[in-house]
Amino acid sequence: MSFDDVGVMFPRIAQQMSFLMEIDKLKAIIRQSPIINEDRKENDAEHSWHLAMMAIMLSEYADDSDVDLLQAIKMILVHDIVEIDAGDTFVYDIAANVDKREREERAAERIFNLLPTDQAIYVRALWEEFEERTTPASRFANALDRLHPMMLNYISHGRGWAAHGVKSSQVFDRNKSMQDGAPKLWEFACACVHDAVKEGFLPD
Amino acid sequence: MSFDDVGVMFPRIAQQMSFLMEIDKLKAIIRQSPIINEDRKENDAEHSWHLAMMAIMLSEYADDSDVDLLQAIKMILVHDIVEIDAGDTFVYDIAANVDKREREERAAERIFNLLPTDQAIYVRALWEEFEERTTPASRFANALDRLHPMMLNYISHGRGWAAHGVKSSQVFDRNKSMQDGAPKLWEFACACVHDAVKEGFLPD
Repeated sequence: MSFDDVGVMFPRIAQQMSFLMEIDKLKAIIRQSPIINEDRKENDAEHSWHLAMMAIMLSEYADDSDVDLLQAIKMILVHDIVEIDAGDTFVYDIAANVDKREREERAAERIFNLLPTDQAIYVRALWEEFEERTTPASRFANALDRLHPMMLNYISHGRGWAAHGVKSSQVFDRNKSMQDGAPKLWEFACACVHDAVKEGFLPD
Repeated sequence: MSFDDVGVMFPRIAQQMSFLMEIDKLKAIIRQSPIINEDRKENDAEHSWHLAMMAIMLSEYADDSDVDLLQAIKMILVHDIVEIDAGDTFVYDIAANVDKREREERAAERIFNLLPTDQAIYVRALWEEFEERTTPASRFANALDRLHPMMLNYISHGRGWAAHGVKSSQVFDRNKSMQDGAPKLWEFACACVHDAVKEGFLPD
């Protein structure tokens, strides 16, 4: 099925809609984080929504108090789309992270180019900005991307951590980059990790 | 599990995070629209992400060319949270739509008030603005909320429509309010519905 039949009358909308229906596949990309009240893992679409809600509610903690929230939210909504082709790369899987960038570059090339050229360039730039972490909005968005699985794990007694034998030292090490995007939220996350160790559901 | 242990040191963040973890439940609220490439229906969190992506890519078609995109996206991300308590009300279910508002009011009261007061008021106002459809951004957001299931149904050969015996006259009637938020997208949607009838997967 495609928008070919209606594309004759509405070529630009049909092209935009083809992209929008292609990214429906993000709902099938499974992450390693648990859903709190269900016995399943969350997918990238759910994660992206949840992250965007965190951006709205927690923007006061961005390192730059004048952070561009719209830009941060756009990056958040777009940041995982490349995983439709490249798959989710678990943050604690060091081997898989080696060729992550290359796999994601190829995915970006294919998926974003389904859009009209002006928008393909625009969305690609959003993804690049998220990846490069050189702007305050991208550092804030990245900090939330680290914070989110830590919170899901903490509140569900470390279900995802336990499944992968993750230790507290790894959690600190792999997420400390949060400091430059949202330092106060990093302090909060550290307090949660310490508490998880104390409560006995995260090995020291 | 709660954030009580860490809430002593970080009372405001702990309260915000309690809300953010409560709304994880949106991932379990099932809608009537199909996932295109999977044999399941989408949930509200996935729908909200997809809708926000539509807002970014299709803002040029908003009735007000100067539409406030950030406001529209915020409303979109928030608009279904009340369904955690109130459940999803199928757009073609006229009986269920009778007490929808009352159920959703109660839900808004409970869920938004998990936030610090300033933010509870803020998020409640976003939800009210979406419901009232008096601003250009809310009319655009509502138009996309109508467009999204129509597109998922069209591209998957009317899977959701067939499951509920929906006819084309109902699709036109229940979604025509789209016209005042995104008239060009309504034209596109109508072309898709006509094509669906022609292709034989939506009864006239």
